[in-house]
Amino acid sequence: MIVVQKYGGSSVADTERIKRVAERVTQARRAGNDVVVVVSAMGKTTDSLLARAQEISVIPPGRELDMLLTAGERISMALLAMAIHELGVTARSLTGSQAGIITDAAHGKARIIDVTPGRIHGALAEGHIVIVAGFQGVRRDSKDVTTLGRGGSDTTAVALAAALGADVCEIYTDVDGVYTADPRIVAGARRLARVSHEEMLELAACGAKVLQVRSVEYARNHHVAIAVRSSFSDSDGTLVDEGDDMEQAMISGVAHDTGEGKLVIRRVPDKPGVAARVFTALADANVNIDMIVQNVSEDGTTDISCTLPVADGPRATRLLEELSSEIGAEGIVFDTDVAKVSLIGAGMKTHPGVAAAMFAALSDAGVNIEMISTSTIRISVVIRAGDVEHAVRAVHDAFGLAEQVPA
Amino acid sequence: MIVVQKYGGSSVADTERIKRVAERVTQARRAGNDVVVVVSAMGKTTDSLLARAQEISVIPPGRELDMLLTAGERISMALLAMAIHELGVTARSLTGSQAGIITDAAHGKARIIDVTPGRIHGALAEGHIVIVAGFQGVRRDSKDVTTLGRGGSDTTAVALAAALGADVCEIYTDVDGVYTADPRIVAGARRLARVSHEEMLELAACGAKVLQVRSVEYARNHHVAIAVRSSFSDSDGTLVDEGDDMEQAMISGVAHDTGEGKLVIRRVPDKPGVAARVFTALADANVNIDMIVQNVSEDGTTDISCTLPVADGPRATRLLEELSSEIGAEGIVFDTDVAKVSLIGAGMKTHPGVAAAMFAALSDAGVNIEMISTSTIRISVVIRAGDVEHAVRAVHDAFGLAEQVPA
Repeated sequence: MIVVQKYGGSSVADTERIKRVAERVTQARRAGNDVVVVVSAMGKTTDSLLARAQEISVIPPGRELDMLLTAGERISMALLAMAIHELGVTARSLTGSQAGIITDAAHGKARIIDVTPGRIHGALAEGHIVIVAGFQGVRRDSKDVTTLGRGGSDTTAVALAAALGADVCEIYTDVDGVYTADPRIVAGARRLARVSHEEMLELAACGAKVLQVRSVEYARNHHVAIAVRSSFSDSDGTLVDEGDDMEQAMISGVAHDTGEGKLVIRRVPDKPGVAARVFTALADANVNIDMIVQNVSEDGTTDISCTLPVADGPRATRLLEELSSEIGAEGIVFDTDVAKVSLIGAGMKTHPGVAAAMFAALSDAGVNIEMISTSTIRISVVIRAGDVEHAVRAVHDAFGLAEQVPA
Repeated sequence: MIVVQKYGGSSVADTERIKRVAERVTQARRAGNDVVVVVSAMGKTTDSLLARAQEISVIPPGRELDMLLTAGERISMALLAMAIHELGVTARSLTGSQAGIITDAAHGKARIIDVTPGRIHGALAEGHIVIVAGFQGVRRDSKDVTTLGRGGSDTTAVALAAALGADVCEIYTDVDGVYTADPRIVAGARRLARVSHEEMLELAACGAKVLQVRSVEYARNHHVAIAVRSSFSDSDGTLVDEGDDMEQAMISGVAHDTGEGKLVIRRVPDKPGVAARVFTALADANVNIDMIVQNVSEDGTTDISCTLPVADGPRATRLLEELSSEIGAEGIVFDTDVAKVSLIGAGMKTHPGVAAAMFAALSDAGVNIEMISTSTIRISVVIRAGDVEHAVRAVHDAFGLAEQVPA
């Protein structure tokens, strides 16, 4: 059987931890499996490389930034290979390029467009454990090295599991699974034994940090099950798979995100094409928009609101201030003192009244709702940042998430 | 014109120095040249990566150690590319593999067997400055990444200069050229304006640290001139080229080396084949032997002495102790408290009496000679380590090296 395991930066943060990972990996090999391990850079390596780049250039060229950052996994994977050798098992480390992770040309956030794992198969056939650098690939056109963006190692692991036909992609991290809410905020938060790809996608998109959105998307599209586990314990973790409506709990969890700001374009003339102009301009500038809310117009004008990463705020504001007079809007407000709280559950599409119950819980807790956005399996609200912990607890309690029997 | 410049670890030790290198490189580009830059890892990066590997494994597998160490140049070259971009010139960094540095399979001390600079030519044609990672290449057979051993970046630069047909390979370092002796020991040491490949080879082999032996060998075999310059000044430096007997000074300099020990095999039976057995065993164990001295035998036995790097001493001693009884020798002595002083000059082959004058100078200075070895352009002696500075000054003075008019 082929086993794909992924270890994040905190799991390989120092040589002692790398030795522990080597033991776990070696166990899987000794149990008779073909083992492929995906590693991130050690601890804060990527951040410190990024800081060095910033000393030289505010906006470094993407190609060179990717060349720089990929040094991080190179170090962790070589050290892990050495630690495995020390345990008497042979290992071969491969860069993203060597492992056949083929991407498009978008440096810094490249997408995997193909996986050609010839060298992996070769090394496995020779009896080695194969270690692959996460987060990186190679451009099909120019053969330049690319990175997949923050958390990209999860995507590498899932893509390899899909290409190699592994039954499950094991993602080892510093938490032991996916919870009904952030356990640091909600004491009674419960680990989910199982959650569907769709729900996990919404949870990740709404601020649950445990898996990167794109890795879940890739897993859904390629029918790969993900087992989220702790690299520091033997807990069962959470299985993310295709899901089965019969078994789904109504609500799987409450996610929150404080990394976004709220941008409001005030008093936009209510004419066709205005929203298109605004969001085309933002998309062209590579600003990642999350929620978009536009209400019915009074007096021929309307406010258009959206949420976006705080870091993109100044750029988006500048861009829209120019556009604002052209389209006849009154002005732009960017507010970073907000938070988003989301309730996610595949079961909610067949249960009316979930949204109402959530709003009532927030109201009872004295939390004011500033924006609302829903999908078939998610309800998100934007509130004041200071209310976020209070709000998460109130919603978690209202839906009895702590007491539910695990699915 | 194609210009190849190489910058060592101390020249790119921090971001400020990288910016200064970027300025120098950009000047050469703005002057209308095609510029290829070879860089080492920043400062002590290679040492600290090595130390990490040692935390995990005493003898790490060579393939993985090379994977690890090559992260060092990856970082420096990407940062240099960014610094060049900041100056308004485009640059492309290439790994050894991408640059077409093809090597044999000897991980940790691979030899360049071919250079296929297709991507370099392509990037130059597009108007970029090309930055190549020094010290690294790729195995022709397995496509695994290799390193060329300590100081290998010099060899990378020379190999590229040869493959690209550059007139000269500029090596920037923290000294401003090759001197008649180490200026830290001999206050009156003089910078050589020009020195031949042959002399430079002997100087490098005898302890002059400014260029790596293999890079000079490569330059001689491929007829590449090397300009050694300081990256911190605008001094002319030293030109190392084919040489021209007519212009050669009798003596070019005095080199010394305290990194070797003296190994003596005592009272070896004077029979055919004994020396062959000894040095075949050492060669098979990859011990680098420098001088070998065997004197005429008395009483049917002889002492065989050789010098080798101090680090290889314990291994060589163990090996020879086993062999010692087999060949009927009395025992092995390894002495690390020695130094080698060498006098080098292409002119000495046509000037008799140079050796005698050197020995007289040492004798006058009260320095005892323990071993002697000569080539056509070099005389080396092994002395007590404590005498080394005294001996270097005495020989430098005796041949009037400080007062000579530069060649």
